[in-house]
Amino acid sequence: MAAALEVPTRYRAVSDKIAALIEQGVWKPGERVPSVRRISAQESVSVTTILQAYALLESRGYIEARPQSGYYVRARRAALPPEPRTSAPARQATRVEGCHLISRLLQAAADPNVIPFGTAYPSPELLPRVRLNRTMAGVVRRSGVALDRYDFPPGLYALRRQIARRSLDWGAGLAPEDIVVTCGATEALQLCLRAATRPGDLVAIESPAYFGWLLLLEKLDLKAVEIPSHPRRGMCVDRLEAALADKRVRACMASPNFSNPLGSLMPEEAKHDLVALLARKNVPLIEDDLYGDLYFGETRPKSAKAFDREGIVMACSSFSKTISPGYHVGWVAPGRYQAQVKTLKLASTISTPPLLQAAIAEFLESGAYDRNLRRMRAAFRLQTEQMRVAIAEFFPAGCSVTRPEGGFVLWVELPGGVDAVELQERALAEGVSVSPGPMFSARQRYRNHIRLNCGHPWSERIEQGMRTLGRLARAR
Amino acid sequence: MAAALEVPTRYRAVSDKIAALIEQGVWKPGERVPSVRRISAQESVSVTTILQAYALLESRGYIEARPQSGYYVRARRAALPPEPRTSAPARQATRVEGCHLISRLLQAAADPNVIPFGTAYPSPELLPRVRLNRTMAGVVRRSGVALDRYDFPPGLYALRRQIARRSLDWGAGLAPEDIVVTCGATEALQLCLRAATRPGDLVAIESPAYFGWLLLLEKLDLKAVEIPSHPRRGMCVDRLEAALADKRVRACMASPNFSNPLGSLMPEEAKHDLVALLARKNVPLIEDDLYGDLYFGETRPKSAKAFDREGIVMACSSFSKTISPGYHVGWVAPGRYQAQVKTLKLASTISTPPLLQAAIAEFLESGAYDRNLRRMRAAFRLQTEQMRVAIAEFFPAGCSVTRPEGGFVLWVELPGGVDAVELQERALAEGVSVSPGPMFSARQRYRNHIRLNCGHPWSERIEQGMRTLGRLARAR
Repeated sequence: MAAALEVPTRYRAVSDKIAALIEQGVWKPGERVPSVRRISAQESVSVTTILQAYALLESRGYIEARPQSGYYVRARRAALPPEPRTSAPARQATRVEGCHLISRLLQAAADPNVIPFGTAYPSPELLPRVRLNRTMAGVVRRSGVALDRYDFPPGLYALRRQIARRSLDWGAGLAPEDIVVTCGATEALQLCLRAATRPGDLVAIESPAYFGWLLLLEKLDLKAVEIPSHPRRGMCVDRLEAALADKRVRACMASPNFSNPLGSLMPEEAKHDLVALLARKNVPLIEDDLYGDLYFGETRPKSAKAFDREGIVMACSSFSKTISPGYHVGWVAPGRYQAQVKTLKLASTISTPPLLQAAIAEFLESGAYDRNLRRMRAAFRLQTEQMRVAIAEFFPAGCSVTRPEGGFVLWVELPGGVDAVELQERALAEGVSVSPGPMFSARQRYRNHIRLNCGHPWSERIEQGMRTLGRLARAR
Repeated sequence: MAAALEVPTRYRAVSDKIAALIEQGVWKPGERVPSVRRISAQESVSVTTILQAYALLESRGYIEARPQSGYYVRARRAALPPEPRTSAPARQATRVEGCHLISRLLQAAADPNVIPFGTAYPSPELLPRVRLNRTMAGVVRRSGVALDRYDFPPGLYALRRQIARRSLDWGAGLAPEDIVVTCGATEALQLCLRAATRPGDLVAIESPAYFGWLLLLEKLDLKAVEIPSHPRRGMCVDRLEAALADKRVRACMASPNFSNPLGSLMPEEAKHDLVALLARKNVPLIEDDLYGDLYFGETRPKSAKAFDREGIVMACSSFSKTISPGYHVGWVAPGRYQAQVKTLKLASTISTPPLLQAAIAEFLESGAYDRNLRRMRAAFRLQTEQMRVAIAEFFPAGCSVTRPEGGFVLWVELPGGVDAVELQERALAEGVSVSPGPMFSARQRYRNHIRLNCGHPWSERIEQGMRTLGRLARAR
């Protein structure tokens, strides 16, 4: 168990060591680096770990594999593109539009022949389907009448207890009573918005923002106040403060941990400042922590809920990205809005199927969740890096790309002349899906941006997709 | 199969025959009627059927069982109470209140020690849990990645096809493309209301009306226009017409088949008139057909959707009352609101878990649904009748009670002085739950009414609960 825990760290350490040796010129471009078995013996580290380290070095552009021969130092390491700048959305509150772009995306997502860079979706092979199915089969076999009934809000105690236990990891220290189970994070966010706002109200959000948030705002008749956001540090708290001074904002929505699409991670101090500012202004924070468990670093980052003294943070998440999108079990810790959220849940969908709640609870308790999470985190880290290298290699000059510390999406700024909606259409015609930038803006800005899903292990097919995208982006 | 189909009809025929003989004086009060075995031999009908016939005769008050002795004609058959009159709600549009009463009800529903007359809930022993669990185990075993994903609206084709096939039975002739799968009927109703109205709008509803509808109206900030309703024929179409002439109503909500709580069944002509009137006025009908499959008569009644030529009927239902409340799989055929409902579903909860959809689809296809439905219909018919007899026996004089032709609830008008909310409290203190009338009115009227769940097979415990309720209602 302890060994397994260290694997991601260890292969990265090996990789960093060899990268340093290459940069010091120990092996020159074109030279062969020592074989996997030899390094494995030298370093007393498993072959698997060295293979992972070499894959990472490959994705970083240090080495390349030659069939039946081994790994060689690359002739010239491709320079990775720079990060995008802090976003500069419109200052006015905006009625949300443009959600018609979503249907195009979902059509593509339903087609298994399309290379899936569009929706943010982990590869099925990374999800613990076999183990989860076994857990579910056991639950079904043992389930008495207790699961064959409406489960009224707040939801199954066994699941709320598991979530409460885990909340220590992100600093929130929730009790089972603090939690309401929902049909995915989307229902959680929807209930929070309905508890905190009325139609016509203003909601401050990150920019760019997840299109699902924008769709929610549109359908609840809310207006977006888009706040400038840094590609690595997330929503700019000082710019939020200026907006709050200026406008009657009723709620703020943010993903301090690995926002979608930026992948930004707010530093702890910024999280503290964000919550303190909103508490002072008496504006609730609807926190979407969907990607919080998918960190690349050493420790689980704290959620904004960890800094909440007044009960103004409504923390939402789900297991759709880490256990099963199909189960679609989410939850919310609504703070002082607990009573309203419970009643809204009852009015809207009554119940989250208790069979699914029970299976997720058992899966969490078994330890299988943590084991699979380690595997997913290592995979997403590697895949995100591989996709960044591919951008450097295949995309036109002048791109910039985010450097996420978690999650599995990249946000790419293409050269000014590229129209991402057009690119989406042309790519789809060649069997590649992508999310165009305007989906992530209330005013359909970011016309030369795209979001790339990095949920799938690197393969020839993925490489082919990236080549296609690059060619189309050049051919504007 | 053909034999099974006839059982409900046959035991009723036998029961009617013996009842006629008793009324003709063939056996006098206090005399023993022929034994079950003897009648079975005489009539060439199974012992089971005769037992069912005798149970029905017992519930109707014709005979009584004496331990180790047999069945005897009762000394004096209790007269069943009359039906309530057509309801007379307030004419003004009303902001909905009083939904706090629901939480009291749900607390009681969660306690297995409470005798469950409160929520409308079939007894677990009538639900096909074992067979459904087997189906689910098979689905889990065979499920590939196809079910481990978001299932975007409109939902799984296999399930929509099964629903479409069955829609021939109720005259609607839907295609799979007409249907959107939802998280229960409640989500279906919620999406329909959001598609058809804006906050502040007026919605015409039956009166009394299911409290879940009222909660939805309250939470969506809609006003109720309560339409007088006949206890057996449902919403009065002429009174609805008068209300439409008078007020700017944006949608109409009704359960033409076995409304909750009245159990009323609109005659076909009235359904036709209702849809024609609303089409003329361009007001959508949100039809809740949740209890449509639970008819006591010979054939499945048509839904209002069967009379819809203009696409103004948004037909909603679910399998929560007939297969599993826990699965919570529902659907809507939204007519001309299809596009809006699909987008609202996507924005609100994205997906209905595909695993559950697949299990329900397979269960429907296997024929197990129809087999269990026959059993449930016979049970609910008997139980509803037994509860009516118990009201005659234990409740104070001057009660009236509905005569539903389907579903499994009764609506009881108690003598004028009884306060149903008080009765609920006192009954709960003695371990019996009941739904007080004010829950079924936007203005908390029907203070001397209660709704009784008849979902549980008659037993000493159920009888004890009815005795308790009767005693408390007398002791006002």
